[in-house]
Amino acid sequence: MREQALLAHIAAKTAPHPIVLVGPGDDCAVVAPSGDGRLLVTTDQVIAGRHFREGEDLTLVARKAVCRSLSDIAAMAGTPRWAVATGALPTGMSHSDAQTLTDALHAVAGAFNCPIVGGDIATTDGPLVVTVTIAGTPHPVRGPVLRSGARPGDAVYVTGALGGSLPSRRHLTFTPRMTEAQWLATLLGRDLHALMDVSDGLGIDAARLATASNVALVVEAASLPRHEHVATWQAAMSDGEDYELLFAASQAAPVPGSCPITGIPITRIGTAVARTQDFANLLCAVKTPTGELIDASAMGWEHAS
Amino acid sequence: MREQALLAHIAAKTAPHPIVLVGPGDDCAVVAPSGDGRLLVTTDQVIAGRHFREGEDLTLVARKAVCRSLSDIAAMAGTPRWAVATGALPTGMSHSDAQTLTDALHAVAGAFNCPIVGGDIATTDGPLVVTVTIAGTPHPVRGPVLRSGARPGDAVYVTGALGGSLPSRRHLTFTPRMTEAQWLATLLGRDLHALMDVSDGLGIDAARLATASNVALVVEAASLPRHEHVATWQAAMSDGEDYELLFAASQAAPVPGSCPITGIPITRIGTAVARTQDFANLLCAVKTPTGELIDASAMGWEHAS
Repeated sequence: MREQALLAHIAAKTAPHPIVLVGPGDDCAVVAPSGDGRLLVTTDQVIAGRHFREGEDLTLVARKAVCRSLSDIAAMAGTPRWAVATGALPTGMSHSDAQTLTDALHAVAGAFNCPIVGGDIATTDGPLVVTVTIAGTPHPVRGPVLRSGARPGDAVYVTGALGGSLPSRRHLTFTPRMTEAQWLATLLGRDLHALMDVSDGLGIDAARLATASNVALVVEAASLPRHEHVATWQAAMSDGEDYELLFAASQAAPVPGSCPITGIPITRIGTAVARTQDFANLLCAVKTPTGELIDASAMGWEHAS
Repeated sequence: MREQALLAHIAAKTAPHPIVLVGPGDDCAVVAPSGDGRLLVTTDQVIAGRHFREGEDLTLVARKAVCRSLSDIAAMAGTPRWAVATGALPTGMSHSDAQTLTDALHAVAGAFNCPIVGGDIATTDGPLVVTVTIAGTPHPVRGPVLRSGARPGDAVYVTGALGGSLPSRRHLTFTPRMTEAQWLATLLGRDLHALMDVSDGLGIDAARLATASNVALVVEAASLPRHEHVATWQAAMSDGEDYELLFAASQAAPVPGSCPITGIPITRIGTAVARTQDFANLLCAVKTPTGELIDASAMGWEHAS
């Protein structure tokens, strides 16, 4: 069962509907359920043995479950409003562990002013599955920032640093870049062309943004911000689970070197180019330190998630 | 791990929040994410080995997954607007089976004009888990019909017939009572005092409505509408997974014997009474065919779901 092929099948089968402004394929869907106000919607699951180790600290499991969906709201520059959560709990889970999990889900979501308003608990003979659905409102001025707005000539940036998320356990402890995304949308307005979060690896995710925008992205290997202990640009491109923002903005837009609210660095890593000539068949290309141009569109996890 | 105790713990820990009009405990939450328009929100999961047999027809699994959440929207007299769905798919599931499942999820939701706007697919070493979250809009005139509005003297009704859901496989093929609920809310307006769906068994669910409304419900055993092959009133009270509507209306309200749109029967089964004297410690009591009054508040499944 190939997840990407299945997702493509689902996207192709999804019929247009008047209340659905953006359907499957971006970080969130955008819906207008009653005509007066748009909502961003995202859902994600974490599964023991897939997204965290069996026996992992349940407060960190809850944190990851909530923050993955929050990161999708950030990836549209939205504000989270409410969440629902379900838990398929292994039959052997103690009542105390179940309370730890649900308390942590509520605490993490509450810390982002995103109350969990409903949910469901059931038991399973399999591993723990936690599913979190979050709805948010778009940026009040800029609206939802999609993946599809990058243009040839745009400057391409990432927040924070990349790589090493699994060994460092940052995949359990990351902070969704909500504040940074909202600040960018306010600062840059229409000059902020495209935005997404990096979850599966920069190569794969940059290729997704490029596909949606019908451009190619050229990334300078030497410019990639790397976490401590991340030795190579290849690791920064492909480790995945960074949950940093990747965005494209007008070449002329004044993008500061860090977010003044949080201090998180912002680094220009490359440029969007037209998909012609050398780039006709490239989505994400890396210019290596030796000047070579290589295809990086598959650098990452087919599914980290 | 006792699910009801955990749900009570979660409800007790849930802090008030200005956008949450109705929190955990009713069929749906009611939220007002942006001030202009309320949404009903519900989430539910179906798990292989719990809510359906391993190897069950995947189109029926999808149908049940969607219809359980639709039934919660019906239980508020709302209209479903959009859904998101996730699947934790067993590693051995074929690509064709995965497509069958996701196609059926989209087809069932689409048939109720409730597009699936987003989702997530991941693999699991355990059984299939499908989670469906649905948001709807309340009845435009009556608003959300909660469990908590029943009053002493109210007449109590159910739609359809009860019992035998598992052996008949109706738990996989039921139709959520959306049309009936919306029609009732339009017809009865403020005389429709309380509404919910019957999922865990009439005894347990009637006790929940009684608790929320601070009344007791007295049900006439002889009046209970039973499906064919459901031999006893005890089975009708306790089999569960009926997904019929249970509602309380003013004694004087003109409630027809069936819904004129769908033809589904509506049967008066009892009366709400003040929780005094004989009923001080009763939530749902059944008057048996021999005139005995017995406590039916535990008749059902601790968790059919």
